[in-house]
Amino acid sequence: MTSVRRPVCVIGLGLIGGSVLRAAARAGREVFGAADVAVPDQRVEPTVAAALDRAAREDALVVLAVPLPAVDEVLRLVAEHAPACLLTDVVSVKEPLIEAVARRLPSARYAGGHPMAGRSASGWAAGSADLFDGAPWVVATEEDTPRDAWRAAAELALDCGAQVVPTTAREHDAAVARISHLPHLLAAVLAATGADGGSLALSLAAGSFTDGTRVMGTRPELVLAMCEGNRGPLLDAVDDALGRLGAARGSLASTGGLASTVRAGHEARLALEDLRNAGREEFPIDLSDPEAFETLRDLGTAGGRVLRMDGDTVIGALPA
Amino acid sequence: MTSVRRPVCVIGLGLIGGSVLRAAARAGREVFGAADVAVPDQRVEPTVAAALDRAAREDALVVLAVPLPAVDEVLRLVAEHAPACLLTDVVSVKEPLIEAVARRLPSARYAGGHPMAGRSASGWAAGSADLFDGAPWVVATEEDTPRDAWRAAAELALDCGAQVVPTTAREHDAAVARISHLPHLLAAVLAATGADGGSLALSLAAGSFTDGTRVMGTRPELVLAMCEGNRGPLLDAVDDALGRLGAARGSLASTGGLASTVRAGHEARLALEDLRNAGREEFPIDLSDPEAFETLRDLGTAGGRVLRMDGDTVIGALPA
Repeated sequence: MTSVRRPVCVIGLGLIGGSVLRAAARAGREVFGAADVAVPDQRVEPTVAAALDRAAREDALVVLAVPLPAVDEVLRLVAEHAPACLLTDVVSVKEPLIEAVARRLPSARYAGGHPMAGRSASGWAAGSADLFDGAPWVVATEEDTPRDAWRAAAELALDCGAQVVPTTAREHDAAVARISHLPHLLAAVLAATGADGGSLALSLAAGSFTDGTRVMGTRPELVLAMCEGNRGPLLDAVDDALGRLGAARGSLASTGGLASTVRAGHEARLALEDLRNAGREEFPIDLSDPEAFETLRDLGTAGGRVLRMDGDTVIGALPA
Repeated sequence: MTSVRRPVCVIGLGLIGGSVLRAAARAGREVFGAADVAVPDQRVEPTVAAALDRAAREDALVVLAVPLPAVDEVLRLVAEHAPACLLTDVVSVKEPLIEAVARRLPSARYAGGHPMAGRSASGWAAGSADLFDGAPWVVATEEDTPRDAWRAAAELALDCGAQVVPTTAREHDAAVARISHLPHLLAAVLAATGADGGSLALSLAAGSFTDGTRVMGTRPELVLAMCEGNRGPLLDAVDDALGRLGAARGSLASTGGLASTVRAGHEARLALEDLRNAGREEFPIDLSDPEAFETLRDLGTAGGRVLRMDGDTVIGALPA
């Protein structure tokens, strides 16, 4: 394996891409990148094509960090300029990425990625080297994911301070529909319903409304690219939420009671806090084992993380 | 007017009542109180009846700080032990309080109140003297609200570091349904829908889910008392949210687009931030003016606040 200390080429230098570049540099990696907007940093190449040419020369790991609608065009450039490079991405959905790579660059050694970190501000200036510290970072772990691509993507995540969550693209997309895309949609609904109450209502808004609408400070284009790109799983999550909200409405109208809704919400929040406060039981996984990916996916399903890698040995940690 | 520096008697010493007691003491007010649970503080009388007897002796302002379901019983004790005292409350709905006071203590000199501050933790230990600093604190401003009761309630709010929002009970209840009770219900729906995604989903949850479900850390009993006590206005708000979420669902299923939902949410969030960042234009209101309450209500409707009082002169501030 030669992936260790491979240079990192980041295409797209918004909040996430810009933070990946800084975080990888912090870990001592050689980094460079490009974006379709001017970025005031000496590590930025003049064009995407120039960055990819350099990636090909230096055998860099190429990281796609553009919004989903721009992925196809960037993949076309990768196929032209750096077709043999190891490839990963930090885009918020994974099945559409796998499909796009299969379409544009079927020979790619590719493992998808998704760091679960963000803030409402966007763009290069909002990024920071510590954005991913301690955060989960999904690395797609399909049956046919090339091992060298998986290692390179996982190594990048760990170098950036994150913990790797191995799972399939399908499971990832279903999960983020529930814990990322649905929260954005509910925040939009909440913000608009509150603002309909006029200045008095907004003037009275305290923590519950402020927190519940915070992500609506994000640029709409970014939210739309993320949510619309995960249409099927998001529809399932919205239907689930509509069912629960409708049931609460019916119960409030008929008996006046909301106990089952509120108690379920409370239990769920405690489950989140319990998972975060749980101890961790570490164990090694041998990447050369033919069952390694299955073990890794089971780790992800159970809420576990990969904490570090040492050669062929991956150290996983399960909540305990 | 003799309300200045009147002692404050707080009945109910949970997060809010306990914070009112500490904040009023910080302002130099004489304070005491009682609760139906043991509270380790020397300012606490052994029983509610004893506290109310003392309130009657010292002509204190009595502050009801118990959950809505307990209000009737406390009002019964007030009627028995301190019927002539000025009365306010810090309960999260206002029309049901007006009705309860009219039923139990029709002669009361009463002005309802509601500080818009909180945190997920509850109980005496979670309270603090600075909980209300800069927060809006509604003082119900009905046609028939006694002026001395209004002044006493507003003075308490200002002494506690809050800013007074004058409005009617009806407008208050409609507003808080949208910016406090609906956020709790949506947080419950979001938490449960996320947890249905299992440990993988909870493990991936980042800021949007964490923030959107934070208030579900609150004890369910408190959320239920608050939401169920505002049934009619909350039904209107839930119907509005259901309509918006259903429209988003329909649009996502048919065209794949969520632009109108997300853009409306973004605009609403910007309206909130604009209101908070707006300058303030101060002007005086003479409480002895027969139109004073109408002016005060207009101030509240426009998102304004009362910043201080000096004798009969109230200083209002409009967003500018």
